[in-house]
Amino acid sequence: MKADHIPAPAVKRLSLYLRELENLQRGGRTTVSSRRLGDALGLTDAQVRKDLAYFGQFGHPGIGYDITELSTEIRRILGTDRTWNILLVGAGNLGTALAAYRGFSKRGFHLVAVFDSDPRKIGRPVPSVESITIQPLGEIAKTVKQYDVRLAIISVPAEAAQQVADLLVEAGVRGVLNFAPTALTVPSEIAVSAVDMAVQLEQLSFQLGMMQRLPARSG
Amino acid sequence: MKADHIPAPAVKRLSLYLRELENLQRGGRTTVSSRRLGDALGLTDAQVRKDLAYFGQFGHPGIGYDITELSTEIRRILGTDRTWNILLVGAGNLGTALAAYRGFSKRGFHLVAVFDSDPRKIGRPVPSVESITIQPLGEIAKTVKQYDVRLAIISVPAEAAQQVADLLVEAGVRGVLNFAPTALTVPSEIAVSAVDMAVQLEQLSFQLGMMQRLPARSG
Repeated sequence: MKADHIPAPAVKRLSLYLRELENLQRGGRTTVSSRRLGDALGLTDAQVRKDLAYFGQFGHPGIGYDITELSTEIRRILGTDRTWNILLVGAGNLGTALAAYRGFSKRGFHLVAVFDSDPRKIGRPVPSVESITIQPLGEIAKTVKQYDVRLAIISVPAEAAQQVADLLVEAGVRGVLNFAPTALTVPSEIAVSAVDMAVQLEQLSFQLGMMQRLPARSG
Repeated sequence: MKADHIPAPAVKRLSLYLRELENLQRGGRTTVSSRRLGDALGLTDAQVRKDLAYFGQFGHPGIGYDITELSTEIRRILGTDRTWNILLVGAGNLGTALAAYRGFSKRGFHLVAVFDSDPRKIGRPVPSVESITIQPLGEIAKTVKQYDVRLAIISVPAEAAQQVADLLVEAGVRGVLNFAPTALTVPSEIAVSAVDMAVQLEQLSFQLGMMQRLPARSG
């Protein structure tokens, strides 16, 4: 498996395949065809087979994919067959919501600490996660070391985000999920993923416009 | 411009080009080359030209793109050259954060109403946006009509999301941004975009694993 040859959209679809496999498993199924997996996600069976072929040989002729086996493999490829300790900087509304987001721990991401620069927040519990006390930014380096934290979430205002990113990188964090509405400059060996929620609304707005321009489908 | 022929990633990149154009404009620039626009986003100049060519002929030989002109065109293509009234269902932590998210209004998405099923919340102001009073779900249809709402955000628990989606579609909403961690079933003419924040962490986890497996780059 060579990272250079795998398109980013294929990696993204791995996450979607995993979710669909888990849905099927909850529904009591043990195997699935590439066609059925594709149908659930609006993809052709050829696309499903092509995506998975980047990572190995998973199907069984005449049977399809073994759901447990493929789920295990995808988790291993994504690196979520282990637990990652994560930290979060910025205990505002969004940070508080993210700290309580159960989807993270369900996927193996364990939130160990929350930081903020506001002296009125420091020393208090996170409103949504009472077991975590908000710490000052000066404690980031110690926490990263203590819990071997590689991934961090930034949910601070735009103007504070670069400084926080610098602190995180210096402390040894290797990947940053950025909710601040600004681009971050980090060394090339640091992975950054930016979440801009307005982008998603723009995409919907585009789709609505397209539907209006296109004639209604027949059949 | 035919929707069938435009790959979704190209549409997504339109949003990113627009953000970069706005950054450049704030920096005082009036024109930009496809190379510089690509560099800022980690794309080749050929990719930038190819993406934009789906939508029209925007560049000027020897000059590049006029930033104001291209920004205006992209907003028109995305449908954000107008204001969209949006509503939000689910006034929990995430809903409260989203209601206060300034990125939406900056992009032309104007939040007109917030709904929740919890009788303790109904009639109270949204904690983060005091000017909006939380309404019961039964008021959705009236609000959609009154404010001509086409887009809605769902931030309710997974088990309530489908029922809320049904209510929204019945009321006339055409696009849904779904933050609930579950897949929604809607008629084919309704646009749905799902936000699963754990997916982004999975992608970072994958990138970190790749970096460890690959030899360090020389040069």
